[in-house]
Amino acid sequence: MKATTPLHPLDAWQAAALLARRELKAVDLVRACLDRITEREPQVRAFVQLNADAALTHARQLDAGPVRGLLHGLPLGVKDLLDTHDLPTAYGSPIYAQHQPLADAAAVALCREAGAVLLGKTVTTELANMSPGVTRNPHNLAHTPGGSSSGSAAAVADCMLPLALGTQTAGSLIRPAAFCGIVGFKPSHNRVPKAGVKSLSETLDTIGGFGRSVRDVGLLGAALTGDARMADPATYAQTSAPRIGFCQTPDWNQADGDTQQVWAQAEKALHGFGAALELPQGLNHLVQVQKDIQAFETARSLSHERLQHHSQLSSPLQALLAYGLTISGQAHAGNLQTTANARSQAATLFSHFDVLLSPSSIGEAPPLALGTTGDPLFYRTWTLLGLPCIHLTFAHGRNGLPVGLQLVGAYGDDHRLLAAAHWVHARLTEHQLTR
Amino acid sequence: MKATTPLHPLDAWQAAALLARRELKAVDLVRACLDRITEREPQVRAFVQLNADAALTHARQLDAGPVRGLLHGLPLGVKDLLDTHDLPTAYGSPIYAQHQPLADAAAVALCREAGAVLLGKTVTTELANMSPGVTRNPHNLAHTPGGSSSGSAAAVADCMLPLALGTQTAGSLIRPAAFCGIVGFKPSHNRVPKAGVKSLSETLDTIGGFGRSVRDVGLLGAALTGDARMADPATYAQTSAPRIGFCQTPDWNQADGDTQQVWAQAEKALHGFGAALELPQGLNHLVQVQKDIQAFETARSLSHERLQHHSQLSSPLQALLAYGLTISGQAHAGNLQTTANARSQAATLFSHFDVLLSPSSIGEAPPLALGTTGDPLFYRTWTLLGLPCIHLTFAHGRNGLPVGLQLVGAYGDDHRLLAAAHWVHARLTEHQLTR
Repeated sequence: MKATTPLHPLDAWQAAALLARRELKAVDLVRACLDRITEREPQVRAFVQLNADAALTHARQLDAGPVRGLLHGLPLGVKDLLDTHDLPTAYGSPIYAQHQPLADAAAVALCREAGAVLLGKTVTTELANMSPGVTRNPHNLAHTPGGSSSGSAAAVADCMLPLALGTQTAGSLIRPAAFCGIVGFKPSHNRVPKAGVKSLSETLDTIGGFGRSVRDVGLLGAALTGDARMADPATYAQTSAPRIGFCQTPDWNQADGDTQQVWAQAEKALHGFGAALELPQGLNHLVQVQKDIQAFETARSLSHERLQHHSQLSSPLQALLAYGLTISGQAHAGNLQTTANARSQAATLFSHFDVLLSPSSIGEAPPLALGTTGDPLFYRTWTLLGLPCIHLTFAHGRNGLPVGLQLVGAYGDDHRLLAAAHWVHARLTEHQLTR
Repeated sequence: MKATTPLHPLDAWQAAALLARRELKAVDLVRACLDRITEREPQVRAFVQLNADAALTHARQLDAGPVRGLLHGLPLGVKDLLDTHDLPTAYGSPIYAQHQPLADAAAVALCREAGAVLLGKTVTTELANMSPGVTRNPHNLAHTPGGSSSGSAAAVADCMLPLALGTQTAGSLIRPAAFCGIVGFKPSHNRVPKAGVKSLSETLDTIGGFGRSVRDVGLLGAALTGDARMADPATYAQTSAPRIGFCQTPDWNQADGDTQQVWAQAEKALHGFGAALELPQGLNHLVQVQKDIQAFETARSLSHERLQHHSQLSSPLQALLAYGLTISGQAHAGNLQTTANARSQAATLFSHFDVLLSPSSIGEAPPLALGTTGDPLFYRTWTLLGLPCIHLTFAHGRNGLPVGLQLVGAYGDDHRLLAAAHWVHARLTEHQLTR
């Protein structure tokens, strides 16, 4: 690398190759990211804790030793919902302001084992719910980065670091990826261990991450799941087109003009590679089921906070918990049964298609002034079904903010979803440039 | 209550009724349990921490206020795998010897909300795995109480307290219930929130508990799941017989003479109330799938311990983690798919039956000298399928130790399983007395 090439915009896949070939030093990449953070953090406010000295020391150790794994030398941001043994973890709540975990979350430990360098903890909304944190959208500081994985998405989008971890219970990975204009990856439910992550909902909580290319999140996915296919260059070298189901979902009428426009663009660019798909009975009314499961399980998972620290919870979170408590355990058992049936039925969606194309955000990121991190409408069903999802950005809306769509894969077929997303992203980007 | 009636043997259901009618004071019941603990704990060693003063204070507060809920005034033991904000939580490992959580596990908080009095933390095997703790079987101190929920089962069996919480990943609730001769209840997977419990396996970990009658664990189940049917007297008043599938499982040839004898007894007592059921293809070879999922997920959930504290893990646990790391992420994805298909297929088992009768422990509790907490063979399949299970004790083996069988219910039908178990337990006990 020439000394004048800026290092911080390198995506994870490119950087990993250079690091593995020893053509790039981890310490130089870490320093470049720290410089970028110094420059941009006062505006973007993506971090709750930085780990600068320890990160530089760790990077030097990595440079002096053997290549450790898939993430060797890559700077990593970690949503402050995941425990870290060397940095406080507050879950975005004043209740945990003094909380120093004894152990790393399993996902954090797995990334460190693969050679990642923990650069800092990133802002989460309060207990990964809807009350915004302090982070701003790097594309326009007056807009939300989305939530709840706000800081992780903003930091990756702003090239403060190449990779970051987040979690999704409704839309907390894919929505901030959409608003910040990067790639977000929610793996299949329960493929990534949740030990050491503040738990909200067994049925829904899913760990995933952010990068600036599809292959980036594949690297991260491979480290998190142990599935080497997600990081295999052969996965991304395939040239045959995937079969795509165009699935607008029953809520399509709520997509705004920007999302309608990217949908039209995508249909044009991907014409001939699939067909329209309507969700069958049993899969087309799951939004309320997801909402009720989330509210019921969150109200019970946060029982200690609800009982001992109620006044330190925000009003919207208090309201969610109160709603969750109105749902009976009997009704919840019914919702779990509906979910089990729907997950079983979801496999049939992929009998004719490799992946589904579906709306992502309703539109561009809302202004901060609205006090919202955005509506997770188009994420709820896929999260409930436990299917892997990837957000792809390839356009801009009326305010110049990023917009895109999500691809959805079959359960456990994360590597095939990544391959398809790589192909689709290339085609959409190309089409965008040439139309 | 007459002052001379011993209070510590009262089961939870009886005590709850007396407490709710204010015919029994919580402080008297707590004191009786503490006296029993003082007498027996030096031999049985069920506890890692006692909470005597705080428990007495809490009991007095409950006596002075309104009836709080289903568990009002009931002393509760909590497996030391569940976090408590007011008592250290070591997960049975020297790694966590100094660990004081900030928050209660959700299950603990829910029990406190329902009025339970936390009496102490009970012994777990190392990180809820197979290396025994110090607890002994109260029926014969030279034998194991089973694991991993060793202390909870022994304490309930020895009338040190009426109710206790435990967890199961392979057989850690039902096996110690069997060895200690009490009722163990593993609810349907994910009906009880796992926040604040040391996580080993998303696919398998399940919270449940112990009591001395079926209705006892129903009370606990209702508090943990919010499903009031489990605590409804009408559930236990039904007089019609359940339809029972007699399911010996493909591993029946490994059941020893004692288990074969209780099976024959049960078949006789329940003759005419069901029929033999063979597990269909797809459900009859799941033991190895369960083992591999447990090993893979535990090896990744315990990544921090594996990477940072390896020498503080026991050799058997090190070996389990090493085995788990030999399983590829691709193979694990296949195992998860097999599990999803099997869970879906399991519903068909209940098209002709309300519950299944199945072997529980292989035989009586092994001697401590063997260094094992027993084989979870007959629990692995039901845990993998996520089905609710109840152990019923109704006989003794050749060494005078308890033996029994388990009943298995349909997913989410925990209340129906409890009703059937109550009926079956009465019939088996009666038959035992009169044969």
